[in-house]
Amino acid sequence: MSRPVLFRLALVVAAVAALPIGSFADGQTKNAHEPVYTSDGRIIPPKDYREWVFLSSGLDMSYNKKAIASDKPVFDNVFVNPEAYRVFRQTGTWPDKTQFVLEVRSSSSKGSINQRGHFQSTDVLGFEMHVKDMARFDRGWAFFDVDGNAPAAKIPTTATCYACHGEHAAVDTTFVQFYPTLLPIAQKQATLSASYLKDEAELAKTVH
Amino acid sequence: MSRPVLFRLALVVAAVAALPIGSFADGQTKNAHEPVYTSDGRIIPPKDYREWVFLSSGLDMSYNKKAIASDKPVFDNVFVNPEAYRVFRQTGTWPDKTQFVLEVRSSSSKGSINQRGHFQSTDVLGFEMHVKDMARFDRGWAFFDVDGNAPAAKIPTTATCYACHGEHAAVDTTFVQFYPTLLPIAQKQATLSASYLKDEAELAKTVH
Repeated sequence: MSRPVLFRLALVVAAVAALPIGSFADGQTKNAHEPVYTSDGRIIPPKDYREWVFLSSGLDMSYNKKAIASDKPVFDNVFVNPEAYRVFRQTGTWPDKTQFVLEVRSSSSKGSINQRGHFQSTDVLGFEMHVKDMARFDRGWAFFDVDGNAPAAKIPTTATCYACHGEHAAVDTTFVQFYPTLLPIAQKQATLSASYLKDEAELAKTVH
Repeated sequence: MSRPVLFRLALVVAAVAALPIGSFADGQTKNAHEPVYTSDGRIIPPKDYREWVFLSSGLDMSYNKKAIASDKPVFDNVFVNPEAYRVFRQTGTWPDKTQFVLEVRSSSSKGSINQRGHFQSTDVLGFEMHVKDMARFDRGWAFFDVDGNAPAAKIPTTATCYACHGEHAAVDTTFVQFYPTLLPIAQKQATLSASYLKDEAELAKTVH
């Protein structure tokens, strides 16, 4: 075996060692968390979503104007796959194959040494997913009502979640207005939706 | 260059390619997020903590029995470096070089289409860190009051945070009782502290 062959092999070793984890040689970031479906189109819930990127947590949120405060308020935790988060940080919008998980968790108030306010308890009350898959879904995105680890069917596009996200979401049918690390990026990248900007303009009139 | 040398090099290449990302050949997980200090012992706040593992979020929590509800409640988001999280999932306790970041964020209630409850806003009110570094700190752990990206001095061990965490924290001076995905693991691994178990026994007497 000649020296040049060994030298080229050593270069390959050095190049592989120098690559950032999760990157390809061409600079593209690999999405290790693409959505996975059964043959009949149900989505398989990801098991490791608690290691994805946390976007925000709200308590007792409601979009219903007639809603009154709950005496058993719940937390909503939102996670997104890390590859999509990194793309959003650069572009202000979501790449294809983005996956959101919304985890609904019960709250406690008095517990251990806590005397006030609310903390998250071990009881998970439900999950939803919101997934971008341009080739698969008519509108690019679909919602799924997830029950544990079982494959989940797509929520029909007649459901109100599609209409509300379409009409009011800040970026690409997602509620970036409630994700505080992402909203400034969308503002800077000018990726806020026309309908969201209209909502904000209307709101400014009533507030001021 | 002889064939055996090239063969051994090829074996190294194959072995490196077969390793899971983030692991060493000996099976230990590499910690890419070890604490970094200045020469005078201040900690350098991590810039990417929002990509670490989210443990929980609370609203308006207080350990003071006399505390009354705030009219401007804040969210506390807790993140831990992913390598430490994975070790905890296996062992029920924290490895050396574990780093926690506590992010204190202001809340909004009416905003965009939200009508009720609280969501997190873009205003970060402060940070704290809690770091395990056995060789560096007398008690194994230290707290840091962080102001932006500036290196942060260790909070003196006379501060109440050390005493409270030492007396009431569920696992290794950390408030695992408020981290819902970790508490069941600590229970299963029997890593709950004696002082926490005593607190819970006392609480059970008053509640029942």
